[in-house]
Amino acid sequence: MQPLIAPSILSADFARLGEEVNNVLAAGADVIHFDVMDNHYVPNLTIGPMVCKALRDYGVTAPIDVHLMVKPVDRIVPDFAAAGASIISFHPEASEHVDRTLQAIKEHGCQAGLVFNPATPLHYLDYVMDKVDLILLMSVNPGFGGQKFIPATLDKLREVRKRIDASGRDIRLEVDGGVNCDNIGEIAKAGADMFVAGSAIFNADDYAEVIRTMKQNIKANQIT
Amino acid sequence: MQPLIAPSILSADFARLGEEVNNVLAAGADVIHFDVMDNHYVPNLTIGPMVCKALRDYGVTAPIDVHLMVKPVDRIVPDFAAAGASIISFHPEASEHVDRTLQAIKEHGCQAGLVFNPATPLHYLDYVMDKVDLILLMSVNPGFGGQKFIPATLDKLREVRKRIDASGRDIRLEVDGGVNCDNIGEIAKAGADMFVAGSAIFNADDYAEVIRTMKQNIKANQIT
Amino acid sequence: MQPLIAPSILSADFARLGEEVNNVLAAGADVIHFDVMDNHYVPNLTIGPMVCKALRDYGVTAPIDVHLMVKPVDRIVPDFAAAGASIISFHPEASEHVDRTLQAIKEHGCQAGLVFNPATPLHYLDYVMDKVDLILLMSVNPGFGGQKFIPATLDKLREVRKRIDASGRDIRLEVDGGVNCDNIGEIAKAGADMFVAGSAIFNADDYAEVIRTMKQNIKANQIT
Amino acid sequence: MQPLIAPSILSADFARLGEEVNNVLAAGADVIHFDVMDNHYVPNLTIGPMVCKALRDYGVTAPIDVHLMVKPVDRIVPDFAAAGASIISFHPEASEHVDRTLQAIKEHGCQAGLVFNPATPLHYLDYVMDKVDLILLMSVNPGFGGQKFIPATLDKLREVRKRIDASGRDIRLEVDGGVNCDNIGEIAKAGADMFVAGSAIFNADDYAEVIRTMKQNIKANQIT
Amino acid sequence: MQPLIAPSILSADFARLGEEVNNVLAAGADVIHFDVMDNHYVPNLTIGPMVCKALRDYGVTAPIDVHLMVKPVDRIVPDFAAAGASIISFHPEASEHVDRTLQAIKEHGCQAGLVFNPATPLHYLDYVMDKVDLILLMSVNPGFGGQKFIPATLDKLREVRKRIDASGRDIRLEVDGGVNCDNIGEIAKAGADMFVAGSAIFNADDYAEVIRTMKQNIKANQIT
Amino acid sequence: MQPLIAPSILSADFARLGEEVNNVLAAGADVIHFDVMDNHYVPNLTIGPMVCKALRDYGVTAPIDVHLMVKPVDRIVPDFAAAGASIISFHPEASEHVDRTLQAIKEHGCQAGLVFNPATPLHYLDYVMDKVDLILLMSVNPGFGGQKFIPATLDKLREVRKRIDASGRDIRLEVDGGVNCDNIGEIAKAGADMFVAGSAIFNADDYAEVIRTMKQNIKANQIT
Repeated sequence: MQPLIAPSILSADFARLGEEVNNVLAAGADVIHFDVMDNHYVPNLTIGPMVCKALRDYGVTAPIDVHLMVKPVDRIVPDFAAAGASIISFHPEASEHVDRTLQAIKEHGCQAGLVFNPATPLHYLDYVMDKVDLILLMSVNPGFGGQKFIPATLDKLREVRKRIDASGRDIRLEVDGGVNCDNIGEIAKAGADMFVAGSAIFNADDYAEVIRTMKQNIKANQIT
Repeated sequence: MQPLIAPSILSADFARLGEEVNNVLAAGADVIHFDVMDNHYVPNLTIGPMVCKALRDYGVTAPIDVHLMVKPVDRIVPDFAAAGASIISFHPEASEHVDRTLQAIKEHGCQAGLVFNPATPLHYLDYVMDKVDLILLMSVNPGFGGQKFIPATLDKLREVRKRIDASGRDIRLEVDGGVNCDNIGEIAKAGADMFVAGSAIFNADDYAEVIRTMKQNIKANQIT
Repeated sequence: MQPLIAPSILSADFARLGEEVNNVLAAGADVIHFDVMDNHYVPNLTIGPMVCKALRDYGVTAPIDVHLMVKPVDRIVPDFAAAGASIISFHPEASEHVDRTLQAIKEHGCQAGLVFNPATPLHYLDYVMDKVDLILLMSVNPGFGGQKFIPATLDKLREVRKRIDASGRDIRLEVDGGVNCDNIGEIAKAGADMFVAGSAIFNADDYAEVIRTMKQNIKANQIT
Repeated sequence: MQPLIAPSILSADFARLGEEVNNVLAAGADVIHFDVMDNHYVPNLTIGPMVCKALRDYGVTAPIDVHLMVKPVDRIVPDFAAAGASIISFHPEASEHVDRTLQAIKEHGCQAGLVFNPATPLHYLDYVMDKVDLILLMSVNPGFGGQKFIPATLDKLREVRKRIDASGRDIRLEVDGGVNCDNIGEIAKAGADMFVAGSAIFNADDYAEVIRTMKQNIKANQIT
Repeated sequence: MQPLIAPSILSADFARLGEEVNNVLAAGADVIHFDVMDNHYVPNLTIGPMVCKALRDYGVTAPIDVHLMVKPVDRIVPDFAAAGASIISFHPEASEHVDRTLQAIKEHGCQAGLVFNPATPLHYLDYVMDKVDLILLMSVNPGFGGQKFIPATLDKLREVRKRIDASGRDIRLEVDGGVNCDNIGEIAKAGADMFVAGSAIFNADDYAEVIRTMKQNIKANQIT
Repeated sequence: MQPLIAPSILSADFARLGEEVNNVLAAGADVIHFDVMDNHYVPNLTIGPMVCKALRDYGVTAPIDVHLMVKPVDRIVPDFAAAGASIISFHPEASEHVDRTLQAIKEHGCQAGLVFNPATPLHYLDYVMDKVDLILLMSVNPGFGGQKFIPATLDKLREVRKRIDASGRDIRLEVDGGVNCDNIGEIAKAGADMFVAGSAIFNADDYAEVIRTMKQNIKANQIT
């Protein structure tokens, strides 16, 4: 599949979010990654459905990829669907009824994803490969600042890539945490085809140049 | 005390929040009211410390009045203090150790407030009048949309006004929920001196006119 | 108001509940008291909305008075309304937003009540007297078996009676726990006008005789 | 092992439950399946120990197969044992100490089972095959109405069948959710030997005919 | 009543606790105050029933006054009773069923108390004065270190003293937090008759001298 | 690696803990095993950081091996590090962010371990073998008294031993629950190299003799 760059708006300027999002999309970003933290599943609280809706009202038409770092999950799913989310992903440990939550996301018209923390085993995938549109591997611990890409994620990406290929389905393999121009090639090589980047993009002077470099490094290494 | 108008940014445009906040301050608002919901204490999730900090970085210098609709409270207090909050208020039912939380807010350099839901009795004030800088009465149920001002709030305001006057302290009496140009005079008459307004301001074409009218109606009725 | 006898179906035979309920109504009972326990707010789990609906489908038309010993409260309210509940009451400590829960019960077409445990203070009534249709005082601790009527309930009944009379509203004052033919007169004298009785009725050979005696003893003592 | 048909009393008429249970047993059912929901682990509340006891008092002697959709599990186990449960099964995610809960069920004189939600991986079986008498695979998400049999359950049944056969132990393999006369043959073929059916039986005019058809379809396909 | 000095063993040397306890009792202490924290109700974890039992096994016969800073309360009550506790007190906010918990403590052969945090209102006493043997006012926030006596406790002590006197019952009025030789007279004057002291005693070279001074200062000021 | 005997101080005399610990170390013990229970993750409450610090202040220099039977885990980690813990281990089910908790323990200068309940599957090890210094297998259910060594632990030990050997890292394999002189040889043979023993040591007259026997039986069977 075509690789996708998904800037995380956690690193954007929240005082002028519409402009930031438009700029990064104009610079070549494919998807907006939207990090939702509830101060319970992770020790931080970020942004919710009203901010998502404001982006849609501002005219953003690109896919919005909502990563729920919340527990429990189910109550907020319809809110995000109504607010314009395109993809909604969640942590399997955060829902008592993973199959049901996946179904609920789809019934509300969104694509559904599962997210794996660095130490979370992959067995949660055993009986849901026919129901996920996206698998997101965290390469840092979500909700904690200032972390580097955990190298063991590369092996984990390779294992998930195998599972996806074996399934014969179109499932996105996304990675989030410490991704930058230097390591994105290696990450693509390990099987990822969707790449969240926060400070690597928003802290740069020229968003377009970073995204262009990222895409080049992905293409040079991509396996799928 | 001088009455204060505190527009709730929940009704502002989150895609261009810095501009909205500057506009409303230029139009005569005194304080920015910042509603934090965690999807646990109330069934919604709004905005957290990073958005508060973005406003400070954007150049907002007016007081930011953070209303925590979260449970538990303590962990997020230092985050908001570091993000530039001026006042932090919370619900007494949401903290096991109300006195301690009030102290912690002050130790982090902010003013401290207690918030009362429409049905919450006032006896939570019995042993903290020497520790609160602000008492906020909810005139709607927090976290649920589309509600009107609950008239019984007027009597409750009068009771709190009596307690404040008896204390001899400078404690702000704030009201939040369904406040508009039509009822603000009556609310001021009942003893409030700080007024949160959301859609009444942000849905108007001319913020300044609304705020001017509100202040006139307050002045004509104010008792303190 | 006309006194009401409300047999608690917790003491009925669950294997033939429809028949039991019809028998007790035929014997003079006015209302069916329906005790819902969730194994969280109290250490027992009893019956839910499907059992309530089965009674309606069986042809029971008398009021069903649902006492929710559950926490949290809000999610199950619409289920009971749809299942045919007439009155829904809950414990104020079990809902973060008491005013909102009362409103929700009414919006679903039921009457709303607040329930007080033996040690729960009455201040929860301070700002809801205009929103409750019923106040239920527990005269035993809910969810625990084999308890006797707590005599201090009589004073508490008198205090609530004063509050109701002062409000000028038609609010039922119900009592639940250890009520029997011997003490029901004294309870009526203290101000109650709705009486839950479980084993006192269902363990008797002749339901009608018990209910008749109860009503006589109430009438002889009733103050309202 | 002899296949067992276990009608779920959730689909029976709760107003005359004893009669319903006797009818379905007379019609050839082997076991009564008893679904316990607590409004926490699943969003519904059904029936508890007192209803189980009422069936025993009514004269029901068939095995009662209690499926606990509650969290936590341990406190209610002795209550159900005392109320006459024959088998008690629970979800491994709902107990902090799965081995301990299995032991506790047995110490109270019941058989013990583990239940797997559709997305729950099977590795929870890795260290308990010597302690379970029953493994129950959910073929719908428990606690939500109106669902169809999830076809992926068939593969999962085959995997559990292999584990049971490898263990050399007499462990029942039960399936629950959307089972009917049409798919029961296929389910038996995949390795199940205990079949929960709710509406398929109780919504039929002739319970005996449904159960007879089910048993025929099982026999024609059974592998064990 | 005779004033009682209750050294808190939180300030003793846990490596030789039996000796410390014997020393402080030999020095004139009347009761051992035993602080139990569970890392949930307060952010610390201290000591549990096994440590209480070890003191009894060591030969301590003085009353042990267990202050439960735990939530929920009920499960651990029988453990402490079996471990030799004389008095068990708890926070009313930490039990759903305060009346029941008080009863349970007494049924297990102990005296029962309620504890009030600095900001906790006294209304929790309204319907339990006939069931408490002890009322403990916290003069610091429990579970947090390095705090000073909160002066507003003195007024609160006076209010509780009035309630106790009005009840005509033998109820101990205990105070805990920042008590020392300098302020103990004033505290006694406000109505307390049981005094927890930690570092004031255990950090002194001569326990006996401190306790003697405390008792003199109490006697010089005592009102009861 | 050199086998280590780790007496659990839960079986020591808490009234003279410093002396007990010194005695058992003088008798040949290598490590002090420190069991922390919070009355939430397990139904018991034992000892916390202050007791750990008291041992250090008493002069204990041997490693202290803290086993956290608490949930959640993260808040108490720095407290135990500051109190002198050498190793801190926790249950993977008790932390939302296992990788983060392991990192936090190391950042505070301690070694980090994961603990597995008898029924807990080993896949929690899949992505953390490069971050753990110790793996602890429970051979009884933690927090419940009077249990015997669960024989199935031997196979589980062999599986973990294989994983450790395959990793090529120095990871301790510890076992806790029902270990005594009779079964310790077999346990060592299965791959353990660190042995918790409670009553087997502290209930003996001669600690040294028990520890000597244990070490002999280990040596005669040890595989590593």
